[in-house]
Amino acid sequence: MATDCLFCRIVAGDLPCSEVASSENTLAFRDINPAMPTHVLVVPKVHVPDASHLRAEHAEMLAELFETARQVAGQEDLADRGYRLVFNVGADSGNTIGHLHLHVLGGRTMGWPPG
Amino acid sequence: MATDCLFCRIVAGDLPCSEVASSENTLAFRDINPAMPTHVLVVPKVHVPDASHLRAEHAEMLAELFETARQVAGQEDLADRGYRLVFNVGADSGNTIGHLHLHVLGGRTMGWPPG
Repeated sequence: MATDCLFCRIVAGDLPCSEVASSENTLAFRDINPAMPTHVLVVPKVHVPDASHLRAEHAEMLAELFETARQVAGQEDLADRGYRLVFNVGADSGNTIGHLHLHVLGGRTMGWPPG
Repeated sequence: MATDCLFCRIVAGDLPCSEVASSENTLAFRDINPAMPTHVLVVPKVHVPDASHLRAEHAEMLAELFETARQVAGQEDLADRGYRLVFNVGADSGNTIGHLHLHVLGGRTMGWPPG
């Protein structure tokens, strides 16, 4: 755990969040600045800086992250209508938090390009 | 392999693509309608319909998909400036191809929300 990491502190329970789902190695909570009607972040409980740091050793965690995302989509009634899953890496993407987080976005028709 | 699947046919070599990278279980090629200066799709060679079908059994393939995405980002000079990784699921997201594909997008500053 990185004690200066906002999402590590949320995972540890030191900071509050609006929890939506969780599993052994992941936590899902609402984005505090929702960009769409549904906007949930799914994070690994272990500290991984961003998607460029994913390696073979993260395989099981990564699969679990997507299982939690699927659960979130079901709970939010997005399974039938669809949703978008986004990882941002680095400045051009606008990423500001140095702990891997998968954006689960939906609740309206989305445009293309994605940003 | 689903013989009526466009991306299975690309993986099999039955249809051409502009290949960017590959690994044992993944293939990366340029989107034929690029939405940004860099727009590459990374697909598993095995047929998985979309991200809502990912399960624990796909863990290693999924990690490999992100390793290939990282390789693509390096080749496209996006590692330092950043990039966005997107999975679309269902109608609201605009998904039109029923074979899992990770969009690797970059080469300009991106806005938010992502579509």
